Amino acid sequence: MKYNAHINVMPLKELLDPQGKAVNNSLHNLGLTNINDVRIGKHISLQLEAPTKDEAEKMAREACKKLLANPVMEAFDLTLAEG
Amino acid sequence: MKYNAHINVMPLKELLDPQGKAVNNSLHNLGLTNINDVRIGKHISLQLEAPTKDEAEKMAREACKKLLANPVMEAFDLTLAEG
Repeated sequence: MKYNAHINVMPLKELLDPQGKAVNNSLHNLGLTNINDVRIGKHISLQLEAPTKDEAEKMAREACKKLLANPVMEAFDLTLAEG
Repeated sequence: MKYNAHINVMPLKELLDPQGKAVNNSLHNLGLTNINDVRIGKHISLQLEAPTKDEAEKMAREACKKLLANPVMEAFDLTLAEG
């Protein structure tokens, strides 16, 4: 069975996000002054081949832990859909 | 009213995604050989202050078009929630 995984990897809330801060300031300079709290992370989409949804989720979590997210600085969330 | 916007900015399907390709290969090297079609983009979360949800969406789209996404190479999708 094929599954599509969508993974968001975001900087932890406790940490500064200098890229988000810079974009926040740029948006204000462009006149969009009602926008705040900009935070920027990664969005990863991938396709998995697994017998069950549980196994697909396990595999996606393993990919996040081993490679996609750095747990010292980032948190990830994961959604899976059949596809 | 405050709204939280979540924006995904992904490389267009027609374009190569060298970063995704590199991660795909690395996942295979780590033993996760059932993962394919890795594509990597940006996830942006931000907070908007707007009188209605429509106006909040309009503002978020403007931010995407003016700064967050490069339409030549990227597509964005947008979800809004009251917060």
